[in-house]
Amino acid sequence: MTRIESDSMGSVAVPADAYWGAQTQRSLTNFAFPAQERMPLSIIHALAIIKLAACRVNRSHGLDPMLAEAMETAAQEVIDGRHDDQFPLAIWQTGSGTQTNMNVNEVIAGRANEILNGARGGKAPVHPNDHVNRAQSSNDSFPTALHIAAQQAIAAQLGPALERLHEDLLGKQAAWADVVKIGRTHLQDAVPLTLGQEFSGYASQIARARQTITHAMDGVWELAQGGTAVGTGLNAPAGFGPAVIEEICRLTGLPFRRARNSFEALASRDALVGLQGALVHLAVALTKIANDIRLMASGPRAGLGELLLPENEPGSSIMPGKVNPTQCEMMAMVCAQVIGNGTATTLGGMQGHLELNTFMPQIGANVLRSITLLGCAIDNFVDHALIGMQPDRARLEGLVELSLMLVTALVPHLGYEKAAGIARDAHKRGVGLRQAAMESGLVDAETFDRLVRPQDMIGQRPPG
Amino acid sequence: MTRIESDSMGSVAVPADAYWGAQTQRSLTNFAFPAQERMPLSIIHALAIIKLAACRVNRSHGLDPMLAEAMETAAQEVIDGRHDDQFPLAIWQTGSGTQTNMNVNEVIAGRANEILNGARGGKAPVHPNDHVNRAQSSNDSFPTALHIAAQQAIAAQLGPALERLHEDLLGKQAAWADVVKIGRTHLQDAVPLTLGQEFSGYASQIARARQTITHAMDGVWELAQGGTAVGTGLNAPAGFGPAVIEEICRLTGLPFRRARNSFEALASRDALVGLQGALVHLAVALTKIANDIRLMASGPRAGLGELLLPENEPGSSIMPGKVNPTQCEMMAMVCAQVIGNGTATTLGGMQGHLELNTFMPQIGANVLRSITLLGCAIDNFVDHALIGMQPDRARLEGLVELSLMLVTALVPHLGYEKAAGIARDAHKRGVGLRQAAMESGLVDAETFDRLVRPQDMIGQRPPG
Amino acid sequence: MTRIESDSMGSVAVPADAYWGAQTQRSLTNFAFPAQERMPLSIIHALAIIKLAACRVNRSHGLDPMLAEAMETAAQEVIDGRHDDQFPLAIWQTGSGTQTNMNVNEVIAGRANEILNGARGGKAPVHPNDHVNRAQSSNDSFPTALHIAAQQAIAAQLGPALERLHEDLLGKQAAWADVVKIGRTHLQDAVPLTLGQEFSGYASQIARARQTITHAMDGVWELAQGGTAVGTGLNAPAGFGPAVIEEICRLTGLPFRRARNSFEALASRDALVGLQGALVHLAVALTKIANDIRLMASGPRAGLGELLLPENEPGSSIMPGKVNPTQCEMMAMVCAQVIGNGTATTLGGMQGHLELNTFMPQIGANVLRSITLLGCAIDNFVDHALIGMQPDRARLEGLVELSLMLVTALVPHLGYEKAAGIARDAHKRGVGLRQAAMESGLVDAETFDRLVRPQDMIGQRPPG
Amino acid sequence: MTRIESDSMGSVAVPADAYWGAQTQRSLTNFAFPAQERMPLSIIHALAIIKLAACRVNRSHGLDPMLAEAMETAAQEVIDGRHDDQFPLAIWQTGSGTQTNMNVNEVIAGRANEILNGARGGKAPVHPNDHVNRAQSSNDSFPTALHIAAQQAIAAQLGPALERLHEDLLGKQAAWADVVKIGRTHLQDAVPLTLGQEFSGYASQIARARQTITHAMDGVWELAQGGTAVGTGLNAPAGFGPAVIEEICRLTGLPFRRARNSFEALASRDALVGLQGALVHLAVALTKIANDIRLMASGPRAGLGELLLPENEPGSSIMPGKVNPTQCEMMAMVCAQVIGNGTATTLGGMQGHLELNTFMPQIGANVLRSITLLGCAIDNFVDHALIGMQPDRARLEGLVELSLMLVTALVPHLGYEKAAGIARDAHKRGVGLRQAAMESGLVDAETFDRLVRPQDMIGQRPPG
Repeated sequence: MTRIESDSMGSVAVPADAYWGAQTQRSLTNFAFPAQERMPLSIIHALAIIKLAACRVNRSHGLDPMLAEAMETAAQEVIDGRHDDQFPLAIWQTGSGTQTNMNVNEVIAGRANEILNGARGGKAPVHPNDHVNRAQSSNDSFPTALHIAAQQAIAAQLGPALERLHEDLLGKQAAWADVVKIGRTHLQDAVPLTLGQEFSGYASQIARARQTITHAMDGVWELAQGGTAVGTGLNAPAGFGPAVIEEICRLTGLPFRRARNSFEALASRDALVGLQGALVHLAVALTKIANDIRLMASGPRAGLGELLLPENEPGSSIMPGKVNPTQCEMMAMVCAQVIGNGTATTLGGMQGHLELNTFMPQIGANVLRSITLLGCAIDNFVDHALIGMQPDRARLEGLVELSLMLVTALVPHLGYEKAAGIARDAHKRGVGLRQAAMESGLVDAETFDRLVRPQDMIGQRPPG
Repeated sequence: MTRIESDSMGSVAVPADAYWGAQTQRSLTNFAFPAQERMPLSIIHALAIIKLAACRVNRSHGLDPMLAEAMETAAQEVIDGRHDDQFPLAIWQTGSGTQTNMNVNEVIAGRANEILNGARGGKAPVHPNDHVNRAQSSNDSFPTALHIAAQQAIAAQLGPALERLHEDLLGKQAAWADVVKIGRTHLQDAVPLTLGQEFSGYASQIARARQTITHAMDGVWELAQGGTAVGTGLNAPAGFGPAVIEEICRLTGLPFRRARNSFEALASRDALVGLQGALVHLAVALTKIANDIRLMASGPRAGLGELLLPENEPGSSIMPGKVNPTQCEMMAMVCAQVIGNGTATTLGGMQGHLELNTFMPQIGANVLRSITLLGCAIDNFVDHALIGMQPDRARLEGLVELSLMLVTALVPHLGYEKAAGIARDAHKRGVGLRQAAMESGLVDAETFDRLVRPQDMIGQRPPG
Repeated sequence: MTRIESDSMGSVAVPADAYWGAQTQRSLTNFAFPAQERMPLSIIHALAIIKLAACRVNRSHGLDPMLAEAMETAAQEVIDGRHDDQFPLAIWQTGSGTQTNMNVNEVIAGRANEILNGARGGKAPVHPNDHVNRAQSSNDSFPTALHIAAQQAIAAQLGPALERLHEDLLGKQAAWADVVKIGRTHLQDAVPLTLGQEFSGYASQIARARQTITHAMDGVWELAQGGTAVGTGLNAPAGFGPAVIEEICRLTGLPFRRARNSFEALASRDALVGLQGALVHLAVALTKIANDIRLMASGPRAGLGELLLPENEPGSSIMPGKVNPTQCEMMAMVCAQVIGNGTATTLGGMQGHLELNTFMPQIGANVLRSITLLGCAIDNFVDHALIGMQPDRARLEGLVELSLMLVTALVPHLGYEKAAGIARDAHKRGVGLRQAAMESGLVDAETFDRLVRPQDMIGQRPPG
Repeated sequence: MTRIESDSMGSVAVPADAYWGAQTQRSLTNFAFPAQERMPLSIIHALAIIKLAACRVNRSHGLDPMLAEAMETAAQEVIDGRHDDQFPLAIWQTGSGTQTNMNVNEVIAGRANEILNGARGGKAPVHPNDHVNRAQSSNDSFPTALHIAAQQAIAAQLGPALERLHEDLLGKQAAWADVVKIGRTHLQDAVPLTLGQEFSGYASQIARARQTITHAMDGVWELAQGGTAVGTGLNAPAGFGPAVIEEICRLTGLPFRRARNSFEALASRDALVGLQGALVHLAVALTKIANDIRLMASGPRAGLGELLLPENEPGSSIMPGKVNPTQCEMMAMVCAQVIGNGTATTLGGMQGHLELNTFMPQIGANVLRSITLLGCAIDNFVDHALIGMQPDRARLEGLVELSLMLVTALVPHLGYEKAAGIARDAHKRGVGLRQAAMESGLVDAETFDRLVRPQDMIGQRPPG
């Protein structure tokens, strides 16, 4: 059940019920990959937003209103996800994304033609290139779509997730401000701090990562639209790019603006490289946080045992009653993936040639996947690890009491080396610090008890 | 429309038509990710192979034959892909893959129970842990499944694709053995060689990459099965692991063997890290080859123009008649992704703790995706770029004639510096090398014509 | 010729002429690496700046002025590079940099003692811990030193180099604003633009990378000093950190400020991870620029031949008269290294535990090397590649005339498919575009000559 | 104090006491980098080995024996490290290493001329190109030198270090075969194993990594020598390459052989990419081992406390008596660096063009640094962490007794869910497993004591 479609190279049979045309079909044949390698739908939807915006602007440059209306209806349907099955092409195609741009052009034309004359597909009255792609090139539209999709994904999920995460951490900073615990440097016992102070560090890391992402988003607000084939804007009427971008802002509610240099905007994907770099920064911070939490939650009997994680699921298929830090593991794996995506994005970004970067689908897929993975991971982590997490106060207190590093508080009194002698003696003999100090004859009980008070060793509260 | 399932933590509502049970349902709730982030089906099918093999072995250790028969039927159905919609869990879950192991256990139990008593799901008469997972742990089964899935993917696609690629390149090495062309080093004109020699280098790169992959596969033939929870084999009968592995060999037709050290086999994923490293080696080689081809095919008028690629599709949505090296671009993007996957895999491999690596789903997903991407990319590249590629012989000959670096053949006669003077003079004045040589008075026409013969400058044929 | 020094663990023989003490000597023994793996001197000098600043502040907290004066003299000598041979420790030591902090403490104490009593080394009257390190910990001093060294290196070299690079590119954007050339997308001939437009894209990439670096420097202005061992400031008097930082600003002339969260400032190195990420962004941009230039300079006879690079050196040891794009190669190698350093830095940043990141020397060494490499590479590149580079105007013009993609200018007149037919016909028959257009009967000569004018196809000038 | 040297581009002033000539001097000017960025001396020495070998072979092709003798003397002096200060060029130069090849050619010529006529430098009677570089090109010599240097470094240090490491781990596997300890998966308490089993896993990881390195070395035994400029062997007499390689084998005592394809041998650095990949595999394994050890050695009071590390140095400049896992930290940092070097090497390997890879100095520097870092790190780690490490047997035993996961031994008796109930009850109430089991009424004391015996839960010994 096929029909014949054609393009400038000749005719091709396409499935009768498909909206797409010859070029989509050629790509399907030439780039055979499994279904999970399909171009992300968020890119498809963003391209349809561009088509809708361009169509509206083209009306004022002589586009037949009857055709425009049908095209706009079709584009809106694509935006609304009503034709998601019509975009079967792989990420792995031409590096400009031309085939996906043509897929969108063809589906909108094919649906518009169906609206206008009842027959699906074809190139008349609406032509994929001459009407849907009018005054556009894949070379400006595809990077524009990547920027739109990235910003939409951040606005819809990663941004709110980061805010929730930050607030949860600030909450713990406040709630646990007085929970004194032993500090650890080099994984070795050190002087005390509070659990709230520890979490204030995590909150500060997330605040910094958010700031980095905000800075990196700056270049992604710039859209290439209007540059057409090589950045000169050939075949686009004067003012076309800015007008389309204004429409895109209206359609998305987001503050896009024109690329400050249209040649860079086609030839480099540096803004997305920078955004992915910021996501790697976030992944580095999240890895530290997730690792610390699973370390503090280790046990229950033969680990640190300072934090109690919510018991979300049985942990083992063979060991009954086991509870594992699964949310931390999920987070650590997601972060490793985002860092790997960073390598892939860097490689794509650096290898463009002359007027065009031809690693665009790969770069876009990596950035979008990174945003989605981090957004989902953070939401799950907040909901299923952070919110229900509790300190084991008795355990925390017990470990502080055992610690030898409280000896540091004696340094201003005794000097470094005598204090070290006391700690080493306590360690070697397996006795408490107080006992060793007393037996050393270097400090009296009253002085020891006045100086070695964990709750006095934690300094000021963090500024928040 | 739900029913109630339970596990050691309590009861959970699952969709009435699902085969899975409480633990799968918990994971769906706790690890919410979009559908494209699902655990690869090849891992699911490999786990079902393990379940089938284990069930057969468990028969000889007292497993009720009636239960066994139902479980084996159910496992075979999963292997055959008849329940692919029953495995909705994400890659991003517990780092041991326990939840996916339990998903498989629950679906096989749920289907076996349906076979035995007509009611889908549940834990009787077949219990997911006590029967399906009997004598197994996620900690040995999941890495076993990753190794099985990786080897199956290589056997099914990447291996044959590499063989086709190698043969195509050897064919070109032979076919173009006499096509003299200008060499280029530093992208600058150099002394000549033949196009066949150039392609012999590519063939040799691929041969080396294949060898690297074969070596790296060695450790992946080792299976962890039998180690159970921490490598000691607790709760598995003597000889259980080897017997299951023998069954797996029978079921897959592949030469798996027991891990030489069961503690390493659970705690490290080094064998998969090594395999991914070999895939990165392949990606490096393929990038070089794809880049060379698109460089030689650049033009048609303002590039090197030495190779003519098949015209597979219109190249531009705005520039009519443009043909682009799209297969090379696809290949370069895939290679960048595989290298990024390598970073992700390395990160996962290095971060295991004590008795278990808990980045297993992430590592498995990256290795399997890399194998699939490379396999598909190579097949497409061979079919749609290499097979139809032709040299532009007139262009190749013309460029050789223009070249100044043929002067190198005069070095043994004139010495380096006088030869350099002739080349620099020709370059500066924009004349041919022969003219500059004649006018230098350093060499006579007969000597020049005897020494400067491109076809005599190409040495012996490569050994192949 | 040794003398005996001691620390809290016992006594050690050190070379008689060394200023250092027992702990430096222990590290030399325990971490044997070749000399090229030494801790960067810029970190040593920065630590000495901290010691000088801390000493000044400690005066107002009771430090004996006679000791202080000797310590300040010694610290200033270290800052001035007069004891560079006294810091033999490797990057590869304890992950907190404690041994290098102690090396600086010991050398300053050893030199101060020499000033005070004529005998080199020792712990009296000036003690490395109790006096030089007073109110400090390696855990706050070492990250402070890394931030100081990084900002100094940017201020001294990378910053000015980037400014020169940007200005050179802007100069070429202006100078070559009217040099029309053929555009290339996918390495294939496309529609024209000007060489100035092409370079405006490079200038814009560099402007963006500079902005990214400036943003990333923000967190590096924050100093950890004052947090001491775990961030609580234990054993430091109130206000000590801010006072030391004020001194550091005075000594360096740079606008450092106190870390907004002292727990983050010890436990995470995210600010340096972010800075290295920005350097990777710059490396991505520079790779694109260097690659484009060597591609456009390829030839001289069998390449694109559009740019003429300065002839800096003979290019080949065997091929006389060869000139290679060596500055581009140097730049591309440096960028690959910086990207690799990025991976190393990311790995170090993500693996900290609890109150301390223990990959600090590795992170610092990578960030500092990246800054130095990029700074030097850019300076060399500007001086020896950009400044003397010239377009080959005749060649550029000739390639435009040959191009078939000028047909794009006919699309608004003929539609995409007829235009495509003309281009394909010209390509197949090897004739000019005008001839093929005339013979097609689709367009008359007057129309063709009016529409197909390269100089009218280049749009507006970039905003610059 | 300079003298004038010249090359094919003109004359240049060089320091009067330098042996080098014009091309070295040009490179110094054009590629200004700090001294620590110098080309590794191991590459210089390897090039001198090639020069010596080539000179010997050139004798039988007409090289004047008097010149040859002087050149051989000079080359041997370079090999012996007597002119190490004569090689000031940076890694960051032309991507072919031509300038370093010429540096070696010039120094050998300059020294030979001094031997022959008393005047340092110059081009007569020995000419750097026509005599020292005779029948060679940088394009075959430089990659040959990289392969020689890499194999020498492995043979001299990394290989023996790996063997010592492997033997130490095997020793611990045997010595601690009966030390039962609690296993941990997901950092959570699991079923027991022995410390010897744990270390058997490490030993097996190292054995695997050694095997991977041995496989990867295979391609590095192949030498490009004889290919000259583009692989065709132009200007080299028949049999020259094999004869030189035979000499190189004699000089180094190592089993080099001729590249199987001379075009690949110039155009790709895949063999070194593969070797670096194997070093990354090793780094992944070493990271796991170092991390496990520092985790098990955490404490002394508030950590796991299972291993006691040798106390090599005071751990803190502020906290007296602190001992840190500094060797583990050094190892983890080195591994992170090697992985970063891997990214840099991959980038260099993938970006070659046509007949030559022009990232050779960068690739060589990374591979050689990785070999040296790993060799040194392992030696230090064995000497200062492994050899003196001891288990804390009392602590290990105590933790086993506390553990709840011993309940797994009841699963075959009770089924998974009842066993889980007992463990969860013990955990919730903070009581011992035996008490909870007794109170559950599900198992009697005799059965419990028979089944729950840690020393019976550790399975067979590993095969070793």
